[in-house]
Amino acid sequence: MRIVWSIGDPHGIGPEIILKSFLKLAHSNHSFLVAGSFTVLDYYRKALDLPIRLELVKSATTRVDEGVLPVLSIAEPETIKPGTISKEAGRIAIESVKAAADLCGNGLCDALVTAPIHKEAIAMAGCDDTGHTGLLGRIFGIPSPIMMFFDPVLELRVALATIHEPLAKVPGIIRSMNLDSFFSALNSSLKTDFAISSPRIAVLGVNPHASDGGIMGNEEQEIIRPCIDRLSSRLKVEGPFPADGFFGSKMYRNYDIVVAMYHDQGLLPFKVLAFDTGVNVTLGLPIVRTSPDHGTGFDIAGKGVASERSCYEATLLAITIAEHRIKQTKQTL
Amino acid sequence: MRIVWSIGDPHGIGPEIILKSFLKLAHSNHSFLVAGSFTVLDYYRKALDLPIRLELVKSATTRVDEGVLPVLSIAEPETIKPGTISKEAGRIAIESVKAAADLCGNGLCDALVTAPIHKEAIAMAGCDDTGHTGLLGRIFGIPSPIMMFFDPVLELRVALATIHEPLAKVPGIIRSMNLDSFFSALNSSLKTDFAISSPRIAVLGVNPHASDGGIMGNEEQEIIRPCIDRLSSRLKVEGPFPADGFFGSKMYRNYDIVVAMYHDQGLLPFKVLAFDTGVNVTLGLPIVRTSPDHGTGFDIAGKGVASERSCYEATLLAITIAEHRIKQTKQTL
Repeated sequence: MRIVWSIGDPHGIGPEIILKSFLKLAHSNHSFLVAGSFTVLDYYRKALDLPIRLELVKSATTRVDEGVLPVLSIAEPETIKPGTISKEAGRIAIESVKAAADLCGNGLCDALVTAPIHKEAIAMAGCDDTGHTGLLGRIFGIPSPIMMFFDPVLELRVALATIHEPLAKVPGIIRSMNLDSFFSALNSSLKTDFAISSPRIAVLGVNPHASDGGIMGNEEQEIIRPCIDRLSSRLKVEGPFPADGFFGSKMYRNYDIVVAMYHDQGLLPFKVLAFDTGVNVTLGLPIVRTSPDHGTGFDIAGKGVASERSCYEATLLAITIAEHRIKQTKQTL
Repeated sequence: MRIVWSIGDPHGIGPEIILKSFLKLAHSNHSFLVAGSFTVLDYYRKALDLPIRLELVKSATTRVDEGVLPVLSIAEPETIKPGTISKEAGRIAIESVKAAADLCGNGLCDALVTAPIHKEAIAMAGCDDTGHTGLLGRIFGIPSPIMMFFDPVLELRVALATIHEPLAKVPGIIRSMNLDSFFSALNSSLKTDFAISSPRIAVLGVNPHASDGGIMGNEEQEIIRPCIDRLSSRLKVEGPFPADGFFGSKMYRNYDIVVAMYHDQGLLPFKVLAFDTGVNVTLGLPIVRTSPDHGTGFDIAGKGVASERSCYEATLLAITIAEHRIKQTKQTL
């Protein structure tokens, strides 16, 4: 497999965790590439004294010696100031993602692993998206890619029915969205990308105690349960479960994935259970895309203390998903 | 101290965890009492073969031999069927709480530890409250007691700004409630009940990423931050923090309490971090009240496998809070 890393915000920990991940992966059977900035990677390589050779390449398919990390220069900065928000850094981050996504879309790379971008920096550079998921959805014309989190240690998967929405809007969106399509798409992705032949899907309620039979809210009775009933003949979907005790009681172990109705309901328990090893995956895109489950870490950028664990796990997962997709395609042909 | 246990739903694990907690506490310097049903306790004592002597007493202050558990008969059932929802069981559970609350209100007992009740059973018995917190608030004429959770192992405290509300109503309630009073009351309770001289209070945002500067919702900028600013000269209140990473990054260790804006935001991480040792506390009541942080456990009732750990910890905490309150009263006099 050929994996491309987008460089992330040049002032964050992205370049560092890419370099450190490459150190672990350089002698694997796969090839790697960074779409971004040679200057930025070289800056952190020197600053952190990392034993890596970089090579500026003109094409994603240029061959390099084993142990050398090829870099495709998409945009180069005037200055590099770790830990600061800047328009130039935001622009490089966005251009890097777009170029890397193109490489995957054109089949020159097999999977994209994105390093963290900074919302304010990309906004300064004129990008309105709240994150990679929306941006990639827009690039590939997919209105609702699914945001999923995976922890390889616990084998825990959590998907979000709604993503970056104000809490006040969540119940309304749950009512108006096509939940049937959401679960069907999720089911397909788990089959294709994770090679789970018959995924067991757990669904959390929107309201406390999943509304306790309608005492606190009614989205469970009016929307979620009817949807589960409709799908139950062809999918293994169960719920809605009261969210509060679901993770503490380890009920998630009985399912391949847990669907949270909103951002904090899924991310709060996920980050407690999988803080260092969690991986973010976008399902439903034509390309494979994963990323570390953390932000730009401006407070520790350039200091050499950032953990590459999540980025490394994201890269391994990207390889696995790409392999599963190829296998599936071969079976279909 | 004299601690009274309300018996909880006679068909749940309440009687069992009370008996097992008493086994651990019988030879402490404190005295204990159950307000509820002699028949029920005796049924479980025999069924589970627990080495405890019960004694039917006429008053909370009747002296009994060391190692004997006195029982005040509030109501006795016709039948006992572990694991079943019944109106009679609901009635006994409610009458037991009311009687035990009275004993504390009248100064005959120093603290109340409530065993779990079943919402449907108490509803069948004509009680509309969604739980003990509301019921006790009503009994003592306190409109908004504060629901708090405590884990003695992690020294983690989590309070809820809203409790059993439909998710759709949460942002509106945050907007209309008196948050200033809430934080002031919380601060007072932490000083009085937990003897924390200057409590450090962390506040979570309502929206994902605490709205990221207003991109996703605006309760943080319009309501929560101004409230924190108003209070900052006299209370140590900080936030609003993005909720998703707050517990995973262990930021809670820097504070005496974390205020979650709604039920699942507080309970989800709390139950992951403190599933077996968590304790529920009601702040702001004239009496001391704690309870185990779990439900009636109908699926395991009468089987002898229920863990008394949370009930035991709740009892220890009730003793500690009662001691703190007495100390405070003496200092004030």
